[in-house]
Amino acid sequence: MLVTVILAAGKGTRMRSDLPKVLHRLLGLPLLEYALEATASLGPDLRVVVVGHARGKVEAAFSGRGIVWAHQDPQLGTGHAAHCGVEAAAGSVEDAEGVEVLVVNGDLPLLRSETLTALLETHRGTSAAVTVLTCVKPEPAGYGRVLRNDDGFLRDIVEESDADEATRRLQEINVGTYVFGLQEFRECYSKIGRGNAQGEYYLTDVVVEAARGGKRVATFRVEDPEEIEQVNSRAELARAGSLLRCRLLDRYMAEGVTILDPETTYIEKGARIGRDTTILPFTMIERDVEIGRGCEVGPFCHLRPGARIADEAVLGNFVEIKNSQIGRASHVRHLSYVGDGVVEDGVNLGAGTIFANFDGKKKHTAVVRKNASVGSGAVLVAPVTIGEGAVVGAGAVVPKGRDVPAGAVVAGVPARVIQRGKRKQEQAESPGTSGA
Amino acid sequence: MLVTVILAAGKGTRMRSDLPKVLHRLLGLPLLEYALEATASLGPDLRVVVVGHARGKVEAAFSGRGIVWAHQDPQLGTGHAAHCGVEAAAGSVEDAEGVEVLVVNGDLPLLRSETLTALLETHRGTSAAVTVLTCVKPEPAGYGRVLRNDDGFLRDIVEESDADEATRRLQEINVGTYVFGLQEFRECYSKIGRGNAQGEYYLTDVVVEAARGGKRVATFRVEDPEEIEQVNSRAELARAGSLLRCRLLDRYMAEGVTILDPETTYIEKGARIGRDTTILPFTMIERDVEIGRGCEVGPFCHLRPGARIADEAVLGNFVEIKNSQIGRASHVRHLSYVGDGVVEDGVNLGAGTIFANFDGKKKHTAVVRKNASVGSGAVLVAPVTIGEGAVVGAGAVVPKGRDVPAGAVVAGVPARVIQRGKRKQEQAESPGTSGA
Amino acid sequence: MLVTVILAAGKGTRMRSDLPKVLHRLLGLPLLEYALEATASLGPDLRVVVVGHARGKVEAAFSGRGIVWAHQDPQLGTGHAAHCGVEAAAGSVEDAEGVEVLVVNGDLPLLRSETLTALLETHRGTSAAVTVLTCVKPEPAGYGRVLRNDDGFLRDIVEESDADEATRRLQEINVGTYVFGLQEFRECYSKIGRGNAQGEYYLTDVVVEAARGGKRVATFRVEDPEEIEQVNSRAELARAGSLLRCRLLDRYMAEGVTILDPETTYIEKGARIGRDTTILPFTMIERDVEIGRGCEVGPFCHLRPGARIADEAVLGNFVEIKNSQIGRASHVRHLSYVGDGVVEDGVNLGAGTIFANFDGKKKHTAVVRKNASVGSGAVLVAPVTIGEGAVVGAGAVVPKGRDVPAGAVVAGVPARVIQRGKRKQEQAESPGTSGA
Repeated sequence: MLVTVILAAGKGTRMRSDLPKVLHRLLGLPLLEYALEATASLGPDLRVVVVGHARGKVEAAFSGRGIVWAHQDPQLGTGHAAHCGVEAAAGSVEDAEGVEVLVVNGDLPLLRSETLTALLETHRGTSAAVTVLTCVKPEPAGYGRVLRNDDGFLRDIVEESDADEATRRLQEINVGTYVFGLQEFRECYSKIGRGNAQGEYYLTDVVVEAARGGKRVATFRVEDPEEIEQVNSRAELARAGSLLRCRLLDRYMAEGVTILDPETTYIEKGARIGRDTTILPFTMIERDVEIGRGCEVGPFCHLRPGARIADEAVLGNFVEIKNSQIGRASHVRHLSYVGDGVVEDGVNLGAGTIFANFDGKKKHTAVVRKNASVGSGAVLVAPVTIGEGAVVGAGAVVPKGRDVPAGAVVAGVPARVIQRGKRKQEQAESPGTSGA
Repeated sequence: MLVTVILAAGKGTRMRSDLPKVLHRLLGLPLLEYALEATASLGPDLRVVVVGHARGKVEAAFSGRGIVWAHQDPQLGTGHAAHCGVEAAAGSVEDAEGVEVLVVNGDLPLLRSETLTALLETHRGTSAAVTVLTCVKPEPAGYGRVLRNDDGFLRDIVEESDADEATRRLQEINVGTYVFGLQEFRECYSKIGRGNAQGEYYLTDVVVEAARGGKRVATFRVEDPEEIEQVNSRAELARAGSLLRCRLLDRYMAEGVTILDPETTYIEKGARIGRDTTILPFTMIERDVEIGRGCEVGPFCHLRPGARIADEAVLGNFVEIKNSQIGRASHVRHLSYVGDGVVEDGVNLGAGTIFANFDGKKKHTAVVRKNASVGSGAVLVAPVTIGEGAVVGAGAVVPKGRDVPAGAVVAGVPARVIQRGKRKQEQAESPGTSGA
Repeated sequence: MLVTVILAAGKGTRMRSDLPKVLHRLLGLPLLEYALEATASLGPDLRVVVVGHARGKVEAAFSGRGIVWAHQDPQLGTGHAAHCGVEAAAGSVEDAEGVEVLVVNGDLPLLRSETLTALLETHRGTSAAVTVLTCVKPEPAGYGRVLRNDDGFLRDIVEESDADEATRRLQEINVGTYVFGLQEFRECYSKIGRGNAQGEYYLTDVVVEAARGGKRVATFRVEDPEEIEQVNSRAELARAGSLLRCRLLDRYMAEGVTILDPETTYIEKGARIGRDTTILPFTMIERDVEIGRGCEVGPFCHLRPGARIADEAVLGNFVEIKNSQIGRASHVRHLSYVGDGVVEDGVNLGAGTIFANFDGKKKHTAVVRKNASVGSGAVLVAPVTIGEGAVVGAGAVVPKGRDVPAGAVVAGVPARVIQRGKRKQEQAESPGTSGA
């Protein structure tokens, strides 16, 4: 049985925020989501999150996710936080024998699930009581250093402040992520005190207690120091965002998406993009966006959640799409807002097209049927439907509910029909739209 | 008595510009402003700026600032420039005894005022005749190297071209920023010649003359080599801008502003931003902008001088605000230009709202009273006022002077009242705006 | 006689694309264009490109350019590819004596023409049979190492997989770019086999055969390892784009263009920009754009091919210009699309001006004569002409063909004349535009 315990009780004072640290957003998702996702891949039987500061907000943000919430109050250190988590899990554990507890901080968003998997496998492969995640850092200052026995197992962790010159030169550090046997955790925790300057129970002390008591303490070393970058300030949050963004962009490029300028391409976690689609500079794509194959997106394009872009669509500059479908080979090239819209295949929306989706109280949907053409500077007041092959003139305002019949041409403010629908073969000439 | 002398007479040939180098802008301010600001914090009794090339333009740009302008004509070297500055100050000095002169280049925008303060304190603490700002540079090539006596005071400055192999390996260099005693400067300056290849009086020679003459020449070492990066070309100007921008962004983040992507956030010097405001990617905020707490700004947002954004306002994509107030919790989410406007609290401006502030001759103000709603694609021709709770329909053009009464609904081109104001409790339904 | 052979037959599997690798765009031009341009400066008598995978697409993209296309089918290695190129050239060569063949990969876009010139000069100066481009790479893993004779000529090239420890430590590597004597190439090629794991003829083997056979194999070392970065994946394409972009921006800045933030300025190859023009952040300038002196461009500005911007013009935020002229001192400051337009001198286009250039079938031109003023949110439906000094009111839609007379004022949807043209001295007051 595997229990994951995520430590998320801290106030995050250095964030200088009214929002709890773990709710700050990183590429569109709350910080805590990253620890949940990384641990989820291990398939835990029980997921515990230890909360304290502003716990109501945190619990509300992740309600309905099957999380066991452990309350740490008062907050007496990292060891105490882990203890709270372990005891919250204990109620659901029938037999403590053989139960493994993975303890991980909620503010390490770059930690890969592959690393946690390898840590757990090391724990199992070595039959250790505790397994410690370590890392070789060229500049280890501030971290506890890892000391080993002759047989390679961990002997001690020495904090920076207690380290002599030789120990300070060691570069292998304790990350603060561990797998414990549940029983071993309880046994060792019961033996540690809080007779230190802070008056806190340290999680490190639990590990050292295990080692000193003759238990086997294994280690697994993460190769990439980037993975253990912690988020304690907004500057660190931004830096983590930058690193995660690069990871994501590299993956898209490897899968066949052209990204002309990764440095000015901001894509949140969760967007899906098809092969041979080109993303031009100065583009922001939020989570929950889907883009087909062979599309062209940008520059200066903003795709918001719920955007569904079909193959070969072209989205140009100063274009915002929100919660809308854009059909195959449809073009939205300039200065447009498509909100809560359904744009079918082969549609051209001229420069300055706006979907007025809000009546001051709620949002409505506008539909543009296939092969229709909307003129430059037109406003479609939802709910309204532009029929198949219809043409909306430049600067027209189509009022809500005044659907435009298939093939008709409308113009004016408000828009009136100036030409009836024709047979499909004849294409109406648009009274003014904007092409490429 | 403290005199600051800023050297700003050079042509800046490598800028390849018709504009004098010190007037080129860095994060919205002329380059010279940075030296003025850094020295201002020392509280000088007299501020001298030495100008030569295009001095009329420079003086005009900083008129009314209480600066004593010294003219260097002809230009006979850095020593001569400092001499011009010192003599320009001398007229206002009753007694030269005890007068300190800080000499600093006008093209070192990254030099911190804290560094100048420490330089001056060193000068005073050591009772030196001259105090030299130095820096340890890993790649010192091109700079004069600092040599010391056994007692640690400066013995000599050796230029790169005169240096032997051992001296070239020295990494402590002369920055070119000094504090002189006024009398000592005059005495030493009178002894140097210009029998060098350039035929110029070097400021370095004044310092070396002091050392050789047995005067005490102290040094203060600036830790961060970034501070002494000089701007001689547009590429160096851009680099200085990038470094200053990072400093500014770090400060905002430390104070509690979320900046999702610092790499694509351009904030000029002087903007004020409240805590828990989020700046999204691709945002440019110019100097003289104030943003409240809990706002959301961007992506693709451009705030220009005079923008005053109240708490909890939301400014979205492709939005430009210039010399305008945006009230508390008001929304300007898409594709809008608000110029010379007053937007009160709780207002929603739909996508494509434009304030037509210019009649071809001068600018006018449009006012949108609280809780009013402006439809998508509407144009407000200033001067005009939209009354409290009024609704402007999609695509409407409100002509100048045709104020919309409180609670009324207007639509069309030009806009006409289609519904009279109602009691406050009833909210008019907007004929088409754009929400989030 | 000089023959250049560019190798461009590979599939580029790691691109994961339906488009052949050498047709992927880099700063607006296909990858292959860079090799063609770098070699063109050598003034070759014959230009051969070896194609294989999707050769039809490649040939079509470069038709009419005087290229001799060599088909490599089947593809039997780099030596075989060069052989195909050499034999394709041979038909046009009367006498093989003294013919030089430069062989270069089509996926090295950062290689400078100066480097190729120096390589060729080395070849000639040393009377070598073959001259090899080499580079000292701090991390040479994966490349063949270059071994030399006592007299400094190349003795052998040892592939990574065949190298012993000492050889692996060598940092001088074989780039894969060569000059061969035509006869020497043929002679050596005829002697190599393809009895290796891949069953291919290696170009390296031709070189080694020459060296072992006692021919003189010279080398030229490229100083900047950046030049030999190869493009095999989209991530490498993006990285090459970033490096080339920096090169270009440095050149503009050296020539007197101010670029406030190079990191967010994307300029394609081929744009021309005048002195003392300022490019603000978040600006994209495509190839085939010309900008005069003293202009202001950006932020958030997109100039597309065919944009011709005269001196002192001001292009502001959320502005797109395509295939259009903007006259001297004309202003397009906000939220506008100018497509296929002619804007003369001294014109002001208000915020939200749109040129509706497309009638659903083809593009048309709109003309705005000098000193005219177009109101905010106006749409000009091309073809149409706005006369000299005329004024288009805010929100007006000027229908196609309804030219506005000089000096007239028009307003409404569709626009009607509301005031006749006046004498030039009187300036019509604009019914609503947007100034700075």
